[in-house]
Amino acid sequence: MPDLLTLLLDLHDLPASQLPEPARDAARSSLYDWLICGRAGTNEPVADKLRRFIAAEGGQGLASVLGAGTAPARQAALVNGATSHAIDFDDTHFAHVGHLSVGIYPAALAVGEETGASAGDVVDAFLLGSEAAIRVGMALGSAHYNRGFHQTATAGAFGATLAAGRLIGLTRDQMRAAIGLCSTRASGLKSQFGTMGKPYNAGIAAANGVESARLAELGMSSCADGLAGPEGFLQTHTDDPGHDLPPVGRWLLPEISYKFHACCHGTHAMIEALRAVGPVDPGDVAAIELRTNPRWLSVCNIADPGTGLEVKFSYAWLAAMVLSGRDTSAFDSYSDVVAADPALAAIAGRMTVTGDAGLSDMQAEGVLRLASGGQTPFAHDISAPIATDVLRDRLAGKSRALLGPDGGPPATLVGDLATMTAADLGRMLRGEAA
Amino acid sequence: MPDLLTLLLDLHDLPASQLPEPARDAARSSLYDWLICGRAGTNEPVADKLRRFIAAEGGQGLASVLGAGTAPARQAALVNGATSHAIDFDDTHFAHVGHLSVGIYPAALAVGEETGASAGDVVDAFLLGSEAAIRVGMALGSAHYNRGFHQTATAGAFGATLAAGRLIGLTRDQMRAAIGLCSTRASGLKSQFGTMGKPYNAGIAAANGVESARLAELGMSSCADGLAGPEGFLQTHTDDPGHDLPPVGRWLLPEISYKFHACCHGTHAMIEALRAVGPVDPGDVAAIELRTNPRWLSVCNIADPGTGLEVKFSYAWLAAMVLSGRDTSAFDSYSDVVAADPALAAIAGRMTVTGDAGLSDMQAEGVLRLASGGQTPFAHDISAPIATDVLRDRLAGKSRALLGPDGGPPATLVGDLATMTAADLGRMLRGEAA
Repeated sequence: MPDLLTLLLDLHDLPASQLPEPARDAARSSLYDWLICGRAGTNEPVADKLRRFIAAEGGQGLASVLGAGTAPARQAALVNGATSHAIDFDDTHFAHVGHLSVGIYPAALAVGEETGASAGDVVDAFLLGSEAAIRVGMALGSAHYNRGFHQTATAGAFGATLAAGRLIGLTRDQMRAAIGLCSTRASGLKSQFGTMGKPYNAGIAAANGVESARLAELGMSSCADGLAGPEGFLQTHTDDPGHDLPPVGRWLLPEISYKFHACCHGTHAMIEALRAVGPVDPGDVAAIELRTNPRWLSVCNIADPGTGLEVKFSYAWLAAMVLSGRDTSAFDSYSDVVAADPALAAIAGRMTVTGDAGLSDMQAEGVLRLASGGQTPFAHDISAPIATDVLRDRLAGKSRALLGPDGGPPATLVGDLATMTAADLGRMLRGEAA
Repeated sequence: MPDLLTLLLDLHDLPASQLPEPARDAARSSLYDWLICGRAGTNEPVADKLRRFIAAEGGQGLASVLGAGTAPARQAALVNGATSHAIDFDDTHFAHVGHLSVGIYPAALAVGEETGASAGDVVDAFLLGSEAAIRVGMALGSAHYNRGFHQTATAGAFGATLAAGRLIGLTRDQMRAAIGLCSTRASGLKSQFGTMGKPYNAGIAAANGVESARLAELGMSSCADGLAGPEGFLQTHTDDPGHDLPPVGRWLLPEISYKFHACCHGTHAMIEALRAVGPVDPGDVAAIELRTNPRWLSVCNIADPGTGLEVKFSYAWLAAMVLSGRDTSAFDSYSDVVAADPALAAIAGRMTVTGDAGLSDMQAEGVLRLASGGQTPFAHDISAPIATDVLRDRLAGKSRALLGPDGGPPATLVGDLATMTAADLGRMLRGEAA
């Protein structure tokens, strides 16, 4: 089996003609989702602070900044990575153990604008960068995550390096140097969770990717193998590296998972399962019996939430919202008023939740029993693939929920990409018409 | 004993009136040495590449760049850190396990220029940043270094953060956030040794310090304890943290050690010992018997060097150079012609080197036996303190050897600091008259 470095260099060298459409399609969906999350994050405090940080530095740049203006690619990548991760609504890749789009798309798009790339080039660079980041994340493994590192930042930086280097057109030797430089530059800890440091980590990944690729282009030298070599990133950053890595040509990005609900990820399988049941007469709910992976019981099983924030971690309240036809995708669905709603409380009081180690942490199962008689089993696995057209419809709905009917990227975006440039995408970041 | 974070915050809060003159004196000597190394590095390829990198970004800035021009503080710190470490001639602090000035002075001076600080403020900020970095380096310990991390970059970033934050005037809470942000941003691996990645590591430390301090000033939040807290820098970056840390008020910077010879650090104790013996008649050398710490035998005991580079790792050749009165401080003393010099070969052939585990790796001892009869024992410990005036004279000699009689900082620099500003120091970096 080729080593990790060779896998990354082979990905870098892969001709565009060998990128299959289903994998590109996943990258296009990720772009759509990333633009939605990015636009939705522009008013967050962390986004404002980082925009002020790069504005104070100044600098001539062609790379668009989410919210407004342009900057050098490294600065734009820092801001856009953090901004798009600020509301924690972006995609997750479970094998990579982290979020791909927020670390890699900001680097790809910023360098794509600098190099005059097409939108298709940016999508391809993201795809290859993601395939690299997922493999680095798998090689770092759960031992890395459990030690306290944040794959979104660490493995993500290597993905960002690959994406930026692809668009710059680095030679194979330059890409080897870029990976070496990234190995000494990449960082990011989970201790930041719950603070502005968490979205900052995504910006760090993106900025490190731009920096490593641009320095390699200028001829900076580095170690021969920054990943699996002596004192490389694996040896220093994980106690149990994974060795069984998928070969180039096995496309992993399509396993990515999107968030459609503005609440704890541990509740999403239940929400999807109950959405399939559909709204019911609230007075007719006799019992809701939910089984879920035991790890979630200490995370998102608040029986009687006192605030809107606690509702996001309450199976019972969220089940009541879904069965009442309430919107779980919008932020303003989670107010303190909702936490005190007696109609929701009446349904929530009929919920029982039990742990079931036979279910993965992406699964939920249960039974809805009606007072009028009859029962409806429900089940969902959020790792199950979603048909592309269904996915795009749901992303359009997410966009409307977060940004209003006209605030998000055009619903025709994915179809239009074939004729667009990175500069067109940049205008969307800045909030201008494409 | 206060925890590591409290030590750093207490250092940050220390009134200038509590900084003792001997410690400040050490910081002033380090500034002199750092300016020499910085000026000497400006023509190195890594310095040129990083200057081109930040020039492409542009940006308005008041911070001076070694060689020419000004830039925003974060960019100047990146270039200046790498430039001053490029020729590997800067100071070492053995308890910190790394180089202090190249990571911390670039951050202190760049932010000092931005904030209109006095030269004395910059010196104080470096002193406090160094005391912080040494303690972080000690807490990370040899387990960190042996795992593959480079304290110059990792612990150095925290020192740079403290120095930058002190000059910005961060509150204690802001400094806590800055340390938290630094904990997720700091990085640097030893795998870069022998490549441009090594000096880059010093620039990374300096740039990360500026970034962390400026983001904290803007109100970025981070974890409560980025150092010893859960999933903090210690837990993630060392398997055996040190706990016995010197309290605030015990000044560690004065234990710093300077390089006066353009060759392997493992040979410096012998060179100093033989310099004290003084030049002898080459024909009168019957035997040189050297004892040294066994670790050096595989590092710098090349008996018959074939190139100038190998001379730098040859006890025998270097002893012959010292006893012949040759200059070991200048780069051009180490040519391939020197490696083939028959006069040096004649003396070198009379050398025997043996390992002695009773000597530290900073000690060398031995005996010089003369054909005319008589013998002279020699010994040196480079950890022994040097009187300030002797040190300043030797630094002036180092400056002449590296930069010529007029190329370095003025020999009156240290005395002039009391009336200088950071802007005056900046002009020296840029190569303009102060």
